[in-house]
Amino acid sequence: MKKHLVIILPDLTENHRASICAAAGRHGFDCRFFDEPSQSLPFLQDAEIIVGTDPFLSRNAPNLRWLCSPFAGVDPFLADDAFAAPSALLTCSSGAYGVTISEHVIMLLLEILRRRPEYRAHTDRREWVRRLPVRAIFDSRITLLGTGDIGQETLRRLRPFAPKQILGVNRMGLNPGGLFDRIVQRDHLDEILPETDILIISLPGTRDTFRIISEKQLKRLPDDAVIINVGRGSVIDQQALEAELRSGRLYAGLDVFEEEPVPPDSSLWTCPRLIMTSHVAGDTTLPHTVDRIVELFLTDFENYCAGRPLTQLVDREIGY
Amino acid sequence: MKKHLVIILPDLTENHRASICAAAGRHGFDCRFFDEPSQSLPFLQDAEIIVGTDPFLSRNAPNLRWLCSPFAGVDPFLADDAFAAPSALLTCSSGAYGVTISEHVIMLLLEILRRRPEYRAHTDRREWVRRLPVRAIFDSRITLLGTGDIGQETLRRLRPFAPKQILGVNRMGLNPGGLFDRIVQRDHLDEILPETDILIISLPGTRDTFRIISEKQLKRLPDDAVIINVGRGSVIDQQALEAELRSGRLYAGLDVFEEEPVPPDSSLWTCPRLIMTSHVAGDTTLPHTVDRIVELFLTDFENYCAGRPLTQLVDREIGY
Repeated sequence: MKKHLVIILPDLTENHRASICAAAGRHGFDCRFFDEPSQSLPFLQDAEIIVGTDPFLSRNAPNLRWLCSPFAGVDPFLADDAFAAPSALLTCSSGAYGVTISEHVIMLLLEILRRRPEYRAHTDRREWVRRLPVRAIFDSRITLLGTGDIGQETLRRLRPFAPKQILGVNRMGLNPGGLFDRIVQRDHLDEILPETDILIISLPGTRDTFRIISEKQLKRLPDDAVIINVGRGSVIDQQALEAELRSGRLYAGLDVFEEEPVPPDSSLWTCPRLIMTSHVAGDTTLPHTVDRIVELFLTDFENYCAGRPLTQLVDREIGY
Repeated sequence: MKKHLVIILPDLTENHRASICAAAGRHGFDCRFFDEPSQSLPFLQDAEIIVGTDPFLSRNAPNLRWLCSPFAGVDPFLADDAFAAPSALLTCSSGAYGVTISEHVIMLLLEILRRRPEYRAHTDRREWVRRLPVRAIFDSRITLLGTGDIGQETLRRLRPFAPKQILGVNRMGLNPGGLFDRIVQRDHLDEILPETDILIISLPGTRDTFRIISEKQLKRLPDDAVIINVGRGSVIDQQALEAELRSGRLYAGLDVFEEEPVPPDSSLWTCPRLIMTSHVAGDTTLPHTVDRIVELFLTDFENYCAGRPLTQLVDREIGY
């Protein structure tokens, strides 16, 4: 009997499709591609493997053995009812987004430090204004909350800017590759916030990370500290952050929010000291990102077919 | 007889002034600080050393032996009538601006590659727009026109973004510190333009560099190439560049212009595919920059007093 592989990923090139089909064929899989989850519905009943981001897929696939999400964060698949086949494996594409997201982080950070919103308001009015005091990544004290692929790629790019220190915060207190000047366990986060000029968040949205940056943590940051969040909006108490921005104490560059899309009547749109981007730090418009997603999937597809453990496997208890 | 040192530099801290006064005192110099060149006029007659950026100073100092410019570019001092004392030494503060200008370069570059002007237009209207195709520094072919302090600091920061290649272009064809993947002599610039996705210009404004990027050079760049200019506006034929931007072929991020301030009626203000900043990449609002200016001056002050060659000496024939 033919085994079925269903793929919903709109940015694939012909070459990507050909590589996937070839691998599928070698292992007796029939392979179908769709742009929208709903289009795939007739084929979900018999799907053994699905590549897609929408839990609509896993909820309608009773014979599913493996769902591979092309996103790095798998929060939509963590709900109790996300899988019709509860024992299905879940993998993520963490490792595909470090390049594009780290470039976004550094852009947002420099825009804030170099006062681009204010300068831009002047150039929009054809005003030649100079000498607004800028700051630099150079000599800053940086803390990366989240030390996975995105955190590490960001650190690598920050290093030659010669910041004073780069600390990492994670659950286990381990220093990946010895890259960080120091690693602090998440339980001790509060202790290093007073020595953090720049806080960069790349945490997934899980029960454990829910609002771990709340009013108390924000208050511990020094004046004019900058927060960049490219993880999940649920990590920050957004209302408490907005209060700190409006009071003129902190700065923020946010790509993720508690509610997305941010509603048109949200007060965030007019919040001072805030740069907002519309969850675009890690989209799949950059060809390299899709190359990596396909690469990661094909590696695990070979693992799956050989009965080996999947390298991208998500621990559904902790959520990544 | 007391020797006179006149310093016009508005961003000095008390510590800077104290260090300079102490050094001056040790070598029998009287030392005066001013915020504006005109204030210093009564003291220029007897000045042996001046630190300042305005040729008003050198034109009114007949007994001048050394002018130290706190800027990296000394183009205002290259005119034939810039010095009342024609044999005076001229030094520049090249080496002080690499940190701040390289951060500006990378910000402008990322803004263009990640389509910030378009995204910003949407967020300004509270529109949640996504999936505009972004590009990355990753895998790009970069050419640095100018391989001095600014070029080198930019290169160091670009390297971990993993561009495909970083070429350098300079007069002599030498590879400083072996940093560049390849160095091309300025005479051969035209040959590498077709393989340049990103052209970063940090050249000084001299006779030799006048419009070395003209229509012919622009035409050789591939479609959608990005030009960043933080050197001098005179390096680019601005009208030819504007034509390429308006035709939808190239992108540019300019901090320097043929005429500064850019006049309010300039067509540049509404030019598409262009990000303009008001010659702020290398101002002295960043404390580190002033620290370095003072450090470089004090090193050469000791050299001067000991009769040693000055490390920051400008060759007035070539202009840097």
